[in-house]
Amino acid sequence: MIQLYYHPGNASLAPHMLLEEIGAPFELVFVDRANAAHKSPAYLKLNPNGKVPVVQLEDGSTLAESNAILWYFGEGSALIPDDRLQRARMLQWMFFEQYTHEPAIAVARFIRVFLQRDDDPRLPDLLARGQRALTVMEQHLADRAFFVGDHLSLADLALFAYTHRAPGGGFDLAAYPAIGRWLDRCRTEPGVTEMPAK
Amino acid sequence: MIQLYYHPGNASLAPHMLLEEIGAPFELVFVDRANAAHKSPAYLKLNPNGKVPVVQLEDGSTLAESNAILWYFGEGSALIPDDRLQRARMLQWMFFEQYTHEPAIAVARFIRVFLQRDDDPRLPDLLARGQRALTVMEQHLADRAFFVGDHLSLADLALFAYTHRAPGGGFDLAAYPAIGRWLDRCRTEPGVTEMPAK
Repeated sequence: MIQLYYHPGNASLAPHMLLEEIGAPFELVFVDRANAAHKSPAYLKLNPNGKVPVVQLEDGSTLAESNAILWYFGEGSALIPDDRLQRARMLQWMFFEQYTHEPAIAVARFIRVFLQRDDDPRLPDLLARGQRALTVMEQHLADRAFFVGDHLSLADLALFAYTHRAPGGGFDLAAYPAIGRWLDRCRTEPGVTEMPAK
Repeated sequence: MIQLYYHPGNASLAPHMLLEEIGAPFELVFVDRANAAHKSPAYLKLNPNGKVPVVQLEDGSTLAESNAILWYFGEGSALIPDDRLQRARMLQWMFFEQYTHEPAIAVARFIRVFLQRDDDPRLPDLLARGQRALTVMEQHLADRAFFVGDHLSLADLALFAYTHRAPGGGFDLAAYPAIGRWLDRCRTEPGVTEMPAK
């Protein structure tokens, strides 16, 4: 069976939602990051970059990077647009998520929720960058139901994960009403759930 | 004609190499970042995220994020593997480039080459992270000619861009012989060239 090596509260959420959304049978394997299990020789064989999540397919092949995992399982489903430009724009938002959104919003949340350092000197810059990312999303969603096309795509799953958790990082989502409506829309999808803690 | 809005020395290089590689007719439009042209209202219409590069197609459509641009123009060419798992692994390396490689290696180079601050307090951490990224690449390339499959793919173009410029960031590529051989292999490709300054 497909195995998703995960940690709750990190980038594992989007692949988890996708597997639920497409109804693929899979098994969750908890990676004990607090005890550095992701730096163990066994884990580094699965993902030499030492990041969680990673997926192991039934033949033993592995695949890392949450958004590449989304792509692999999304192929052939309605979660990837048929139109060439729309498909590339979906990837545009997935790269935006990795380069612009996650390094600000998820890192701010990590510092506040996990490290519990509300006075960390990095926070003001992370908050400013995160607000800029949310503003770009808000503008885009002002007259759209989903990021690309008229239904859920991989871009929505990738961006839902850390956006709906942004309040933990100190972001007030009330300031972004179009994002709020989009989050609610995503929540009606069968795959959009939370992860088990372990 | 396709227009590539670019700045020399930044993420514009990979899309530029790709357009050269596939032989598409295109025009380069210099974005004067030093004078904040990428924050002008006209540019923000092309890319609301205010990042360079962006591509404008003949019908006026735009597409941002260097790796999404690679995907768009690479579709249907040998630069995207036919095999489903290989295709996802190509994307895995492209997300690695954006999340793990660029934020360390390109930022170190920016600080040293453009800001000319060799004593910047961020450099030790950036160098350590960049070295870890290069080590992951070195291991992967030890018994492979290219990142995925047996010929050039989008992953090679994405990673070539800042890897061959890594010495400017203070990285000694002599310590990574497999990377050195891979860079030389990439350089024999017709599209692998430098960008004009303006």
